[in-house]
Amino acid sequence: MNDMIIPDLVERELKVVGTRPLRPDGMDKVTGRAKFGADMHVPNMLIGRVLRSPHAHARIKSIDASKARALKGVKAVITADALCDLPSEFVPAGEMMVNFRDITRNVMARDKALYEGHAVAAVAATSDAVAAQALSLIEVDYEVLPHVIDVEKAMQPDAPLLHDDMYTIGADPKPEKPSNIAKRVEFGFGDLDAGFAKADVVVEREFTTKPVHQGYIEPHACLASVSEDGQAELWCTTQGQFIVRAFCAKLLGMEVSQLRVTASEIGGGFGGKTVVYLEPLALALSREACQPVKMVMSRTEVFQASGPTSGAKLWIKVGATKDGTVTAADALLKYQAGAFQGSPVQPGAMCAFAPYELENVRVIGFDVVVNRPKVAAYRAPGGPIAEFAVESVMDEVALKINMDPVDFRLKNAAKEGTRAPYGPKLGPIGLVQTLQAARAHEHYAAPLKANQGRGVASGFWFNIGGETCASLNVGEDGSVAMVVGTPDIGGSRASLSMMAAEELGIPLEHVHPIIGDTSSLGFNFLTGGSRVTFSSGMAIVQAAREVIEILRDRAAKLWEVPMEEVEWVDGHARFTGSGEAKSLSLVELAKTAGKTGGPIIGNAAINATGAGPSLATHLVDVEVDPETGAVKILRYTAIQDAGKAVHPSYVEGQMQGGAVQGIGWALNEEYIYDDKGRLENPGFLDYRIPVCSDVPMIDTVIVEVPNPNHPYGVRGVGETPIVPPMGAIANAVSHATGVRFTDLPMSPPRVLDAIDSNQAT
Amino acid sequence: MNDMIIPDLVERELKVVGTRPLRPDGMDKVTGRAKFGADMHVPNMLIGRVLRSPHAHARIKSIDASKARALKGVKAVITADALCDLPSEFVPAGEMMVNFRDITRNVMARDKALYEGHAVAAVAATSDAVAAQALSLIEVDYEVLPHVIDVEKAMQPDAPLLHDDMYTIGADPKPEKPSNIAKRVEFGFGDLDAGFAKADVVVEREFTTKPVHQGYIEPHACLASVSEDGQAELWCTTQGQFIVRAFCAKLLGMEVSQLRVTASEIGGGFGGKTVVYLEPLALALSREACQPVKMVMSRTEVFQASGPTSGAKLWIKVGATKDGTVTAADALLKYQAGAFQGSPVQPGAMCAFAPYELENVRVIGFDVVVNRPKVAAYRAPGGPIAEFAVESVMDEVALKINMDPVDFRLKNAAKEGTRAPYGPKLGPIGLVQTLQAARAHEHYAAPLKANQGRGVASGFWFNIGGETCASLNVGEDGSVAMVVGTPDIGGSRASLSMMAAEELGIPLEHVHPIIGDTSSLGFNFLTGGSRVTFSSGMAIVQAAREVIEILRDRAAKLWEVPMEEVEWVDGHARFTGSGEAKSLSLVELAKTAGKTGGPIIGNAAINATGAGPSLATHLVDVEVDPETGAVKILRYTAIQDAGKAVHPSYVEGQMQGGAVQGIGWALNEEYIYDDKGRLENPGFLDYRIPVCSDVPMIDTVIVEVPNPNHPYGVRGVGETPIVPPMGAIANAVSHATGVRFTDLPMSPPRVLDAIDSNQAT
Repeated sequence: MNDMIIPDLVERELKVVGTRPLRPDGMDKVTGRAKFGADMHVPNMLIGRVLRSPHAHARIKSIDASKARALKGVKAVITADALCDLPSEFVPAGEMMVNFRDITRNVMARDKALYEGHAVAAVAATSDAVAAQALSLIEVDYEVLPHVIDVEKAMQPDAPLLHDDMYTIGADPKPEKPSNIAKRVEFGFGDLDAGFAKADVVVEREFTTKPVHQGYIEPHACLASVSEDGQAELWCTTQGQFIVRAFCAKLLGMEVSQLRVTASEIGGGFGGKTVVYLEPLALALSREACQPVKMVMSRTEVFQASGPTSGAKLWIKVGATKDGTVTAADALLKYQAGAFQGSPVQPGAMCAFAPYELENVRVIGFDVVVNRPKVAAYRAPGGPIAEFAVESVMDEVALKINMDPVDFRLKNAAKEGTRAPYGPKLGPIGLVQTLQAARAHEHYAAPLKANQGRGVASGFWFNIGGETCASLNVGEDGSVAMVVGTPDIGGSRASLSMMAAEELGIPLEHVHPIIGDTSSLGFNFLTGGSRVTFSSGMAIVQAAREVIEILRDRAAKLWEVPMEEVEWVDGHARFTGSGEAKSLSLVELAKTAGKTGGPIIGNAAINATGAGPSLATHLVDVEVDPETGAVKILRYTAIQDAGKAVHPSYVEGQMQGGAVQGIGWALNEEYIYDDKGRLENPGFLDYRIPVCSDVPMIDTVIVEVPNPNHPYGVRGVGETPIVPPMGAIANAVSHATGVRFTDLPMSPPRVLDAIDSNQAT
Repeated sequence: MNDMIIPDLVERELKVVGTRPLRPDGMDKVTGRAKFGADMHVPNMLIGRVLRSPHAHARIKSIDASKARALKGVKAVITADALCDLPSEFVPAGEMMVNFRDITRNVMARDKALYEGHAVAAVAATSDAVAAQALSLIEVDYEVLPHVIDVEKAMQPDAPLLHDDMYTIGADPKPEKPSNIAKRVEFGFGDLDAGFAKADVVVEREFTTKPVHQGYIEPHACLASVSEDGQAELWCTTQGQFIVRAFCAKLLGMEVSQLRVTASEIGGGFGGKTVVYLEPLALALSREACQPVKMVMSRTEVFQASGPTSGAKLWIKVGATKDGTVTAADALLKYQAGAFQGSPVQPGAMCAFAPYELENVRVIGFDVVVNRPKVAAYRAPGGPIAEFAVESVMDEVALKINMDPVDFRLKNAAKEGTRAPYGPKLGPIGLVQTLQAARAHEHYAAPLKANQGRGVASGFWFNIGGETCASLNVGEDGSVAMVVGTPDIGGSRASLSMMAAEELGIPLEHVHPIIGDTSSLGFNFLTGGSRVTFSSGMAIVQAAREVIEILRDRAAKLWEVPMEEVEWVDGHARFTGSGEAKSLSLVELAKTAGKTGGPIIGNAAINATGAGPSLATHLVDVEVDPETGAVKILRYTAIQDAGKAVHPSYVEGQMQGGAVQGIGWALNEEYIYDDKGRLENPGFLDYRIPVCSDVPMIDTVIVEVPNPNHPYGVRGVGETPIVPPMGAIANAVSHATGVRFTDLPMSPPRVLDAIDSNQAT
């Protein structure tokens, strides 16, 4: 049985949770022993390569691969026919709803190529050189079509149409004609007109953001091996081996249990490794060649053909009274989806005003397809885009009523019982505590010099739970092998082992974590939604408690007493009945397990519910060089509610990492296209992510408002830290320059232009 | 909780169990895709090699490895110091009692080399050639000592002593002086003198057998990788990854959960891959070098330094009345242990007379160390040696009283309720049924020609259970990943999947088996003792019934009815309450698992008890060439009680394989030593195992007397088939030649000698 019972908060003094031990995977990562996606080799392995569309939008009239097939060393050539075509319907994949028609067509173009870099064919050959030569021998006859990459242009009735069967979901009335608008969403309540009528001050602005890439250092890579009888193995870098299994099985027409997917170590994901690109191709090539096939993306391919997050056009209107009460808030969000539906406009719309307690609020969002790569999740998907705009406007409102921006936020802050703009009442959350910590922080009072400015912004992310399994296998010497099904991106081997050790009452070094493959555990949703420490932690706690039940039972058997008279304390079974005190350690009980009933194991399979939102407030000081427009981040303090920081160092690491990615997004990162819809900067030389010298040490303050739905009060912490930075930095730059910045990135030429225009007026 | 409740025999009509589907691992083994011990490669991998003693018995005065260490490309050199020295004590390892002092000293000699081929040092280098050169640079200063390889000479008071602290266990009184006799065992009951006094006929004979090797085609091979922080991975060919883990962790001074052992596909084991040789060395080398180390034995090393079974000297005395009733049976068994205690004389002594119901019986056995490689288990360890002698004498007794040998056995056959010579009363067993099937078989009545003879013999093997874990992970499409911890040697992926499918009521092709590594399951005892289909099968049944409970619960939730009103029939939940009939398939329930409570998994961790002995009767026809002494096997019929043949083809395969190995043991196989104790035939050219042209098709008859302790009535079948062949063939050769053969192997020169001596007398 595996009913989910939300356990009580652990009240006893914690010995492991909250400490800062070395991470179990640290040594292998430092020495280079850890095996990432491209590090696996097997005998007889072929190299796979992908032929990609040079056009942003083109009909594929024919593909002639006969010359490629005839090349010596070429073992397989595939086009879209090698994958199943699947009907357009939304089906659940763990916590997501996915459309397999889009997935199969994004993995390999059918009929039309929808963006530059869209896969049109793939080969497997005995070497990379042969594979490359084979690609050059594939003849594709394209009919180039007009393309559109701007979100507002794509929404026009006369725009080039990407899909002639796309009728806007959520439009009322149902549209009669197809368009590029995949979906319309709307949230809110109250009376906007009445709200704005009460306002003393109204600020209304438009904003733009550009698509930005997660910038994970490790490119997509995999190794697939399909046996002649259809059994298959896949090694790949992914945030979710079970999602890869589900997607690949569907695209290949297999049963999920025929495919055993092992997640390699992962060199960054940030949401971008929650989908499939190479994996189905490698499997299809291996199935055709009857040999293993390895595929690794180049950096150019990563930029052109994996999923950045949306660029967007945003309109925000906020009204407030002079005393600082927000009376109404309205937003219109237009998000680029890339070539297939699925921008994060919905979570963006949900997050937009979520840090605020509002009486009158509305958010309307549009998901719009354009001839760009299909977006993928990127850390708090959709949230940073919407909150950049909202937090800029809130700053401006505070400025207009001459109120400290932290005080302004405190006055309107969402708290336990606040009705979120997307409907439900919020449970206990820690926004107020982060704002109070910000106000009290020495950073907030530090003096500023000329050309310097300070910005503040808050941010919200839901966090999720979902299907999760975990096993604890107690070895015959009492050491414990812990198996979880969620890849470790941010140190979850550590945080999960710590909760296992805490529950069992044993030293952490006796718990040895591994990430299980898809056959060795029940289904696990992916490492995403900041769910792992919460959900896998919950599963580990449940498994540990099952182990403790068995240990108590074994001790009771050995002592010939009722199990009710045995308690588990500090890693020992203790007899609580009358008579002589008795105690047996986990090690002692493990040694006799064979005789007392067999191996001692605990397994949990749950659908974790009750994830608590995490809120943050960031402070940033910038200096703008009036000669060059360059923005320097002088000081940065990230303050966030972690619920309970199981391993504070990794919570701080998440806060620092999110801030740094936000700095890149705010100041430099953007996809630049030419007029043919071709990406001009598909590489880290021209797509500029922050390097160490670009950022100061990011200071952190962890606030702990326990999530009542987790035994240790855990909230997910990984995504929230990327929500506030763009707003905070835009506010800081605005204060430094006296010019309100509404377009990302605030790169030197754009900042310089704005300063110059301002001075000119 | 994991109490072992022995389930009732399944009475319903079986749909999968008892059929003959293709094996899940068949395709990969046929195409070469399956990865065996030597098939794993990792980047940065070193090659390990072992320096072995050229002497049968020598004191190691010093080892100077400085030149080897200085050789370019040499990354690690180890001697016994790299492993823990451990106290001499018997500790449990699953179902075995082991002495780690012996294991660590057998893996690497300390102080003394005790047999030719005994490891004295090992190196890891960047190539095999460098490693080989490094071995030649290691200088070992030996003091050669007198050696002994004959079991009876080793028992003499003045024999060279292998261990100066060995005092015979089980001797009464406890000996005052050390000797080479490690242990004395005795079983029996009744009054032997009275029994022999009642006999009309008494036959008393001595026998000898030679050490024979299991002859697995795949040599020992492994790949070890130890991280700088002590976490380790080991890939190896083994019958028990958990035993390898236990042994290596002990020898390396690690926690078991620090070491993750994955069993490769296995190219034969037969008991010989239940111990460690290279594995601790590879780990120790890798720990020193901080690089992965691969080691593969040559065939010469396999013969010199892995474990064959014992050679033995045997004395048997049996008395019977003229009507065919055995009145007394006595045996004295002296088994060579090799260099360390641990011959299978105890199971040999237990099996010796086990096929017979006896009133007066005694078996005394001695375990004797000699300067030969330490013996390892070999299929029904000890049984074939003892029963060869017993069945020869029984045949002679039957001949003397002019009684058909099958009738003679039927008159004295052990059956349910018989007190076994080693103590307990037997449960239901199928010996009588195999004898009846033999008597009724067309083979038994077929005519023979000149120089031809027919032999019959029976055989007994206990079979065991033991600690076992299994998982069933139901995928979101209803396909099932089955994880077991026992390597698949004889088709157990098939037999176990079949039981899972039978229990769940789903087609076999939806069950996908894998062999789990040591971290992904609780402890499993090894694939041995013919325990896998019984024990892992029991665990699978338990896990499947847990899955069914969950499925019933989920259906009850969906229908909002009590779980008691939901039954599981034919892969469907069915509503049994009043009202509309309702039904949901496993696939339908799996698809909604996330919403109804989370992933559906079943896990079992048991100590399986109640394994039922399997008995067999073999018939063999031989023709002896009087010119050359060559014995040709004309016809062979193996009849055995399988309890229930889950997959009859693999039961037949076991019966055929055991018979063929027995033919080799009977006719050709033997270790030949020179006067310095050096093995003269360490290779398959000079150590002659049967090839296809040596054997006819082995006919099989499966008898099914269900084991009441298993839900499908399963008995282990893998070991029993090697028990009868030597006795049956010796009896056949004796009938063909008129000369009683008492020494194995009955190779052409020995047979010719016997015929010539007989004709001369």
